[in-house]
Amino acid sequence: MSRFGLFGEITTIEGKRDELVTILLEAAEAMNTLEECELYIVSVKEEVPDGIWITEVWQNAEAHQSSLSLDAIKNLIEKGRPLIKGMNTMNTFSPLGGKGL
Amino acid sequence: MSRFGLFGEITTIEGKRDELVTILLEAAEAMNTLEECELYIVSVKEEVPDGIWITEVWQNAEAHQSSLSLDAIKNLIEKGRPLIKGMNTMNTFSPLGGKGL
Repeated sequence: MSRFGLFGEITTIEGKRDELVTILLEAAEAMNTLEECELYIVSVKEEVPDGIWITEVWQNAEAHQSSLSLDAIKNLIEKGRPLIKGMNTMNTFSPLGGKGL
Repeated sequence: MSRFGLFGEITTIEGKRDELVTILLEAAEAMNTLEECELYIVSVKEEVPDGIWITEVWQNAEAHQSSLSLDAIKNLIEKGRPLIKGMNTMNTFSPLGGKGL
């Protein structure tokens, strides 16, 4: 089973980026207990004040999928949902290897 | 100085994906000596036979830039260039943190 990678762009309600960043970094913290989550990185761009980019790598797609049903993650998703205006791109791919995995 | 992240999509000449993947994984190997390179991940998609996705995170943009002038990297770029048809997207961003950094 190949690794599962994801690169997505979130647009927040105006002015709510930093609040959502805090929630997403909390989610990243929660991922520390999930061995199958290898990467969960939260990024921004200075020139896009309401944009957040998420980079994830999981040992397989099933692990990613089942994480979404964990209480801790479900609660954070609920907390963050009102701050989200839209999910622009959601690029999924199969990481083969490299530095950092 | 903030971290520098990059997510890019390469389209290879038809049938040359695996050859370029090998070269890019060699580049990732070379990054092991560069502490400022935190992530260099090579990915593919089953449904896109000539596509390669690169995920990089560097401690800062200058470190990424100067890596391009290292002989080992320059040689690999030269080796890979004939296999590349185009660089589609090149998304750059500032990683704030999360799991795996």
